Amino acid sequence: MKAHLSRRYHLAASHRLHAATYTDEQNRAVFGKCNNPHGHGHNYTIEITVSGSVDPVTGMVCNLADLDAFAQTNLLDPFDHQNLNTLFAFQRTVPSTENLSLEVHRIFESFPHAHLERVRIEETANNSFDYSGPALS
Amino acid sequence: MKAHLSRRYHLAASHRLHAATYTDEQNRAVFGKCNNPHGHGHNYTIEITVSGSVDPVTGMVCNLADLDAFAQTNLLDPFDHQNLNTLFAFQRTVPSTENLSLEVHRIFESFPHAHLERVRIEETANNSFDYSGPALS
Amino acid sequence: MKAHLSRRYHLAASHRLHAATYTDEQNRAVFGKCNNPHGHGHNYTIEITVSGSVDPVTGMVCNLADLDAFAQTNLLDPFDHQNLNTLFAFQRTVPSTENLSLEVHRIFESFPHAHLERVRIEETANNSFDYSGPALS
Amino acid sequence: MKAHLSRRYHLAASHRLHAATYTDEQNRAVFGKCNNPHGHGHNYTIEITVSGSVDPVTGMVCNLADLDAFAQTNLLDPFDHQNLNTLFAFQRTVPSTENLSLEVHRIFESFPHAHLERVRIEETANNSFDYSGPALS
Amino acid sequence: MKAHLSRRYHLAASHRLHAATYTDEQNRAVFGKCNNPHGHGHNYTIEITVSGSVDPVTGMVCNLADLDAFAQTNLLDPFDHQNLNTLFAFQRTVPSTENLSLEVHRIFESFPHAHLERVRIEETANNSFDYSGPALS
Amino acid sequence: MKAHLSRRYHLAASHRLHAATYTDEQNRAVFGKCNNPHGHGHNYTIEITVSGSVDPVTGMVCNLADLDAFAQTNLLDPFDHQNLNTLFAFQRTVPSTENLSLEVHRIFESFPHAHLERVRIEETANNSFDYSGPALS
Repeated sequence: MKAHLSRRYHLAASHRLHAATYTDEQNRAVFGKCNNPHGHGHNYTIEITVSGSVDPVTGMVCNLADLDAFAQTNLLDPFDHQNLNTLFAFQRTVPSTENLSLEVHRIFESFPHAHLERVRIEETANNSFDYSGPALS
Repeated sequence: MKAHLSRRYHLAASHRLHAATYTDEQNRAVFGKCNNPHGHGHNYTIEITVSGSVDPVTGMVCNLADLDAFAQTNLLDPFDHQNLNTLFAFQRTVPSTENLSLEVHRIFESFPHAHLERVRIEETANNSFDYSGPALS
Repeated sequence: MKAHLSRRYHLAASHRLHAATYTDEQNRAVFGKCNNPHGHGHNYTIEITVSGSVDPVTGMVCNLADLDAFAQTNLLDPFDHQNLNTLFAFQRTVPSTENLSLEVHRIFESFPHAHLERVRIEETANNSFDYSGPALS
Repeated sequence: MKAHLSRRYHLAASHRLHAATYTDEQNRAVFGKCNNPHGHGHNYTIEITVSGSVDPVTGMVCNLADLDAFAQTNLLDPFDHQNLNTLFAFQRTVPSTENLSLEVHRIFESFPHAHLERVRIEETANNSFDYSGPALS
Repeated sequence: MKAHLSRRYHLAASHRLHAATYTDEQNRAVFGKCNNPHGHGHNYTIEITVSGSVDPVTGMVCNLADLDAFAQTNLLDPFDHQNLNTLFAFQRTVPSTENLSLEVHRIFESFPHAHLERVRIEETANNSFDYSGPALS
Repeated sequence: MKAHLSRRYHLAASHRLHAATYTDEQNRAVFGKCNNPHGHGHNYTIEITVSGSVDPVTGMVCNLADLDAFAQTNLLDPFDHQNLNTLFAFQRTVPSTENLSLEVHRIFESFPHAHLERVRIEETANNSFDYSGPALS
């Protein structure tokens, strides 16, 4: 009786899509307005889906308080209200939402209380990205 | 050409998370404010996903009128505007949303007109739970 | 240059609509399934709208941190994950969402950093209630 | 490191559910108000999910500009603000949302820049339909 | 202590924007794709806002059951799953959402249990129209 | 028969809240994480509400095509995918969403085809700001 629990976290951040190995012209051609020099930003909604058997006593897959504490320390504290380009995680990769979803997956793989199934990030009301593995860390 | 049809039903109910075998202190530690003695409540959104081949004449996986009638009798009439703790289904298990999703899955397994694929319950805008089998009844 | 700021807070609570001066039959006739004896619940979204001039230095109507702190102490701590019928505020009135909006208005009238304009409560995706004054306290 | 990208497109269209081989009485019995002779309409939200490896230079599964251009030509231009019953695609099948999802899947199978994983159509806030293959074209 | 109650109703309908006194060319210039000859459609969300004093016994502005019954008979039965151009109300006016909001206002002015304050219609996620009076009937 | 038309536009931008006349310590105390040196960002939803009499021939308050063209030139082109702090409009004021709503109001006051009633900006799902005048330009 394996069930899934999904929890949505919200963070606001800025980024600029720009590939170091591209010329300015190539960057504008590929990234369009996302390459604007001073960056822009989004409200990111990050949905973490974990799975596990339902505990017969508590009726829980895992305790939401544990997931929230893990997310506060490992996701919200380091990423919320930041410029993604300035973070260590994006020193060698473009802070696209695809790469952000890989990074968040890498982080939640070490959540100890349930099995990570999927990371899904809504960048705008119309764009979303998800990664379901394999493990990256 | 197997397609999926998902239909969302809405119900308002109350519950209290409390394990009979725990002390009061353990209950408060595990369930936090969800253990408040007089209960609290939610608007639950329950999405039922069924699958089947698309009928070449009607263009349907199944008739929504049949699914709605089944949901009215088996889901909305017994669960809407109720206190979940008082229902027969939760006499021996905690009325967590994980257990509610198992119970709703058990119910829709007997829907005769399409194959149940998944039950997904949104408890709040940020929390959801789903169960995709195996069959429980 | 008076602008408005609206902030939404979320709480889960249960209630039962039942008038002490009505017979059981009258209560069922007026309140329908909302009169079910063991109660039911909702996710309430409470939008507080305040107004004020935009500060020329900070660009703010008021500091959201102040509004959040006030809401935590005066709205979320006393009302979230509670059964409204058991609260002092509803010992003499039915805990309808109309009366809840009056009560929340009374509370935020004393917010010291901006002028309360309106309280709006969404009880479900389709029902909402609002109160814009006059002052009640 | 295969990731998924989902993009939502919006179109407004009308349709009438009516099977040519049914009597008028059968059509009313099966399709109910969806068989009203002059048709009715919906705002359809069409979510296209594609997958691919994340490009190490651009950080993209595919360029959204390419997906948008493909969708404009092949989905929005031919389907938006149309009566589905008058389109070539529905001359021999009922323009149900199940059949629309098959048709949209057939269209996006030829998108050259990423692999089509799923088409999901929300017909109303409560009804959605999806098709994940096999390929139809 | 006058409070407001707002209730949202949902209907699906089709329409074509076309002015009888315009040439075909003028119609295309003014209405664009909304003038497509076979029509198109929308999911309309219609929010009715009424006001009144909060009844000291019931805690209600008015009984939602009364508002729902009135809406079923006067709004949903005549308008849902219809082609607006074929209805009596739009024989002499274009079935724009502006005119639909005037028509719905005219209808709810005769709701006997509370005072109509406003009709608001969401035609799509991005377009809405409202009318607050004066009375039209 | 004056009706209102509201149209929502979406833009992604970044900003940093920082008052030039404050010390670093004051800035951190007042703006908190919104003062992070490299900025952060949001998806802003900007709702423009205009009013006018409903044209008896077209059934319109104004032509949405005119409003969209005005918004493209005056709102989306200059503000979308930008860092607000770098724009001329915010050289002397903090790019708070209050000040952004004043700026957008100033812009739409010159829309020639209907009367501007209100600008409302949703900065996140829980925060919104609006300005209804008086005129600023």
